[in-house]
Amino acid sequence: MTTARSTDPMPAADLYDVLARRRDVRSEFTGGEIPADVLHRVLTAAHSAPSVGLSQPWDFVLVRDESTRRAFREHVLAERSVFAAELSGERADTFSKIKVEGIVESGLGIAVTYDPDRGSPAVLGRHAIADAGLYSVCLAIQNLWLAATAEGLGVGWVSFYREDFLRRLLDIPSGVRPVAWLCVGPVDALAETPDLERHGWRRRAPLEDVVHHDKYRRGEPR
Amino acid sequence: MTTARSTDPMPAADLYDVLARRRDVRSEFTGGEIPADVLHRVLTAAHSAPSVGLSQPWDFVLVRDESTRRAFREHVLAERSVFAAELSGERADTFSKIKVEGIVESGLGIAVTYDPDRGSPAVLGRHAIADAGLYSVCLAIQNLWLAATAEGLGVGWVSFYREDFLRRLLDIPSGVRPVAWLCVGPVDALAETPDLERHGWRRRAPLEDVVHHDKYRRGEPR
Repeated sequence: MTTARSTDPMPAADLYDVLARRRDVRSEFTGGEIPADVLHRVLTAAHSAPSVGLSQPWDFVLVRDESTRRAFREHVLAERSVFAAELSGERADTFSKIKVEGIVESGLGIAVTYDPDRGSPAVLGRHAIADAGLYSVCLAIQNLWLAATAEGLGVGWVSFYREDFLRRLLDIPSGVRPVAWLCVGPVDALAETPDLERHGWRRRAPLEDVVHHDKYRRGEPR
Repeated sequence: MTTARSTDPMPAADLYDVLARRRDVRSEFTGGEIPADVLHRVLTAAHSAPSVGLSQPWDFVLVRDESTRRAFREHVLAERSVFAAELSGERADTFSKIKVEGIVESGLGIAVTYDPDRGSPAVLGRHAIADAGLYSVCLAIQNLWLAATAEGLGVGWVSFYREDFLRRLLDIPSGVRPVAWLCVGPVDALAETPDLERHGWRRRAPLEDVVHHDKYRRGEPR
């Protein structure tokens, strides 16, 4: 971990404020360092997430090595082109303006993985739903994201990659699944509107569209 | 939604405090009603989660109907027995003391689902990782869990069920996947220690065990 120390005490951040300010960051990273105590709080937040059978099946690989991050970025940009090739017309034009990663600029990548062997063989709560452990890892990611937001950091989840590439890059064992690459670092500011909405890719839907009562309401695809 | 109104304003809850107090609740539900404005804030928190390609692929089925909740509970208890039958010795004894659901006591079930067609066919960020949409749903669940904790509610994620059973029970379309059943309601208190740790099922691991630097560190299975 970095040895820089923060001069700020642990911030008192209102949950609802953090939930509203949290953004998926690509462009706003300053490249500054994350103080060690801040990073420790953010990782502690992730590690305090709920998990099926208290299995805590997550791992966090902190990637500072620049050549590793540059290699990952090259792969991500190639996958960006794969997706771009599927698009045409207005979708292609809109996507061409959208940045999908801040891997080098952010200074720190956190690869989050899922280890299904943690707590096995009898993981309480997983016998009927094999993916329950994977779900736990995502809960830890959201804790991390919110704590980082409270600390004035930005987080950007990059998903333009092949799991096998990331596994080889970071020497992740074959039984362990990469779940996310998070770009994490100080930011100038957080955007008020999500990038994808600002660029016209897609709008946020009203809450009413996704709330049902007692039975799932069939409707038009959205 | 319930028409009861809360007399309290929106609570100012510190994020780190909420992260630490959050528990997976089984036994502490009072059976009280959730005020409509409180439930609206909790669902709004869930709906403000990040999602791949801004697809917002989640739905929330609010289940108040008691016969539906009782039918689900019967199914869950049967699945509890399926898991119990896999155990022997100390594991069987320890599990016998552990409550796995509060479906009827909590007063409200929230079934959370994943719709892969939301925003399709070209979901930005999902071409290489099909499960990215499923991950988004879990981020929404964690937002919901934290907001509920801030509001003095308990949440208990039940995962002793078969997805097909829940799909039929709530009339969920075949292309939509049930991800969670959350028991939600007012609680007497939140336990200081997770139930599974208190009952001796499993202990929380130190953060150091799950943090790696630049490469995944191979170690003993934990």
